[in-house]
Amino acid sequence: MSALAATEPPGGSLLLSEIREQPAALERLLRHSDEYAAAAAAARGRGLELVRMVGHGSSDNAASYGVYAFGLLPGWTAFRDSISLSVYYGAEMDLRGSCIVALSQSGETPDVLTYVKRARARGALTIALTNHPDSSLGEAAELVLPLAAGSEHSIAATKTYSNQVAALALLAAHAAGRGDEVVEAIRAVAAQLDGALPGLERRLAELAVAFAFVGRMFVIGRGPEYATAREISLKLLETCRVGAEPLTATDLMHGPLAALDGLFPVWTIGSDDENLPAVREAAERARAAGATLVASGPAAAAISGAAFSVPVPVPALTVLSPLLSVVPGQLFAWALAQAKGLDPDRPNGLSKVTRAL
Amino acid sequence: MSALAATEPPGGSLLLSEIREQPAALERLLRHSDEYAAAAAAARGRGLELVRMVGHGSSDNAASYGVYAFGLLPGWTAFRDSISLSVYYGAEMDLRGSCIVALSQSGETPDVLTYVKRARARGALTIALTNHPDSSLGEAAELVLPLAAGSEHSIAATKTYSNQVAALALLAAHAAGRGDEVVEAIRAVAAQLDGALPGLERRLAELAVAFAFVGRMFVIGRGPEYATAREISLKLLETCRVGAEPLTATDLMHGPLAALDGLFPVWTIGSDDENLPAVREAAERARAAGATLVASGPAAAAISGAAFSVPVPVPALTVLSPLLSVVPGQLFAWALAQAKGLDPDRPNGLSKVTRAL
Repeated sequence: MSALAATEPPGGSLLLSEIREQPAALERLLRHSDEYAAAAAAARGRGLELVRMVGHGSSDNAASYGVYAFGLLPGWTAFRDSISLSVYYGAEMDLRGSCIVALSQSGETPDVLTYVKRARARGALTIALTNHPDSSLGEAAELVLPLAAGSEHSIAATKTYSNQVAALALLAAHAAGRGDEVVEAIRAVAAQLDGALPGLERRLAELAVAFAFVGRMFVIGRGPEYATAREISLKLLETCRVGAEPLTATDLMHGPLAALDGLFPVWTIGSDDENLPAVREAAERARAAGATLVASGPAAAAISGAAFSVPVPVPALTVLSPLLSVVPGQLFAWALAQAKGLDPDRPNGLSKVTRAL
Repeated sequence: MSALAATEPPGGSLLLSEIREQPAALERLLRHSDEYAAAAAAARGRGLELVRMVGHGSSDNAASYGVYAFGLLPGWTAFRDSISLSVYYGAEMDLRGSCIVALSQSGETPDVLTYVKRARARGALTIALTNHPDSSLGEAAELVLPLAAGSEHSIAATKTYSNQVAALALLAAHAAGRGDEVVEAIRAVAAQLDGALPGLERRLAELAVAFAFVGRMFVIGRGPEYATAREISLKLLETCRVGAEPLTATDLMHGPLAALDGLFPVWTIGSDDENLPAVREAAERARAAGATLVASGPAAAAISGAAFSVPVPVPALTVLSPLLSVVPGQLFAWALAQAKGLDPDRPNGLSKVTRAL
């Protein structure tokens, strides 16, 4: 049924294997829907409508999605909180009206753990989203929700990121009283992804060859797809040594546009929502500046002038499109690393759990 | 008294002229301290401790500073709100407990204007920070605070950015009952900057030559200096066509480190606060990966292994260090544009007021 079962990854790439596992990982997450419903009920029961999200790297990218999931589904305000403000500077803020959502694959990220302990002591409702509910973070938080992505061995996160995005959608959906609808829509996305993966793998492997000598790129998304732009950029930085920078369509217009030329490709992500006109305009301006365009996302076909188009299926709910849009970027990073002679499973100088100060 | 009076900018560069004008612009802002005190009193009077900041480009970079100014001075929660969530997606959030701080040089940024009108209608306290109090934004907001940077003609913002940073510090200081102290500290920073500018101009003009063929850079700051990292990156993108990306010290460790090599310089910003150990560690890791390091900021000397060091004076209050730290980056962008044969006053494809969708 899943693409994973069909073929073994060539060269045994952990990264490719985990990209392929994403439909199955999404299915695993959905089995925990009741736990997500209970956490949403706890937040509602305390009258909380302010969500502070914390995490680093891919987890922080998923949090960018959470801003829109909570904003569009229950109409709550969610933002990526500063960890350094409370953990390093000791700023004292009133957190009694806040729900904390802490994102960590391992559950062992030191400053996320410290943040959660302090926030809980100050009266916030603390929720941990982790692959390891028995981790230090799982113990420190009042509520623990399993990401259920399964053990992640690749240094560059993929299935954990997707499950974080889906987990935030699920929590937000339950907060909005739309849990059942979103569970079914995520299940449908998993099936769409499973069907699309083999074709996408072939397409991105072809496409990557044309980018073998690229040193820098912009990745443009907006709204929920800004998270996708951030995550694709991070994959390119860590596996391909490409200086990739995520920008909203609006960011591009406010300065970075001036940097573009024919040696500076732009990857655009279009989904069929209220932000599509801005993404289309940004793509046109980038093209006019001489940039080579890649158009991706469910509305890739609406972006004109693209040298390469990588559409993905259209999800039943537009707010879920980031679950599909990120996959071509993950596969591009895997294929481009190979085209550049790099090992996508061994990024230079990185380890799986970052114990940064 | 000011560096501007001493010499005319060579070639009549608008950008350099406005960089030099910053000490005088800061002095102009301070004359409006009473208006800032009144706005802070209005927010306190309504019991508001949640600040939503909106702006694009340099204004959004200044908002990154506001997170720390409000967090460290009055202990309020401030965050960069999503404009697209309310303006394009029509998300309906309860804003009665919010204070909006809208940042726009011109006061004519269309979606910032729409955001403020909607937020005011929903019961938020709306404050506009603009160089043009008689603009559309000035009319739409309940309270208008002048940035007083004076007319800005350079497309790349400099004195407006500095005054936005100082304005956020001033508003936060008044909210904390520390207005007089911060006014004096900003005045002292203006004098320090005025004294340091001629030497910095010479230093950065020498240094830029070594970077003439650079295509990409990281700029590393953390805490209040993350805003500086964002603003320096934007100057490099828009005036020098360098693919510059701002990262916190922690961001660097969570992936982008893998992209570094000898052709990928890293500009680091060190100020003497609780985040310095993380910035020092990031610099060491970058150096170990072969990157050429520039150390800047008041604590530049604490960053080891730098090929180039560009210290700035130490401010009386550490929270004000971004007013000094940004200046070497502005001058670097000006000098590097010339070293690359580009005109820093004419970025490719940009105009002063961006009317992006």
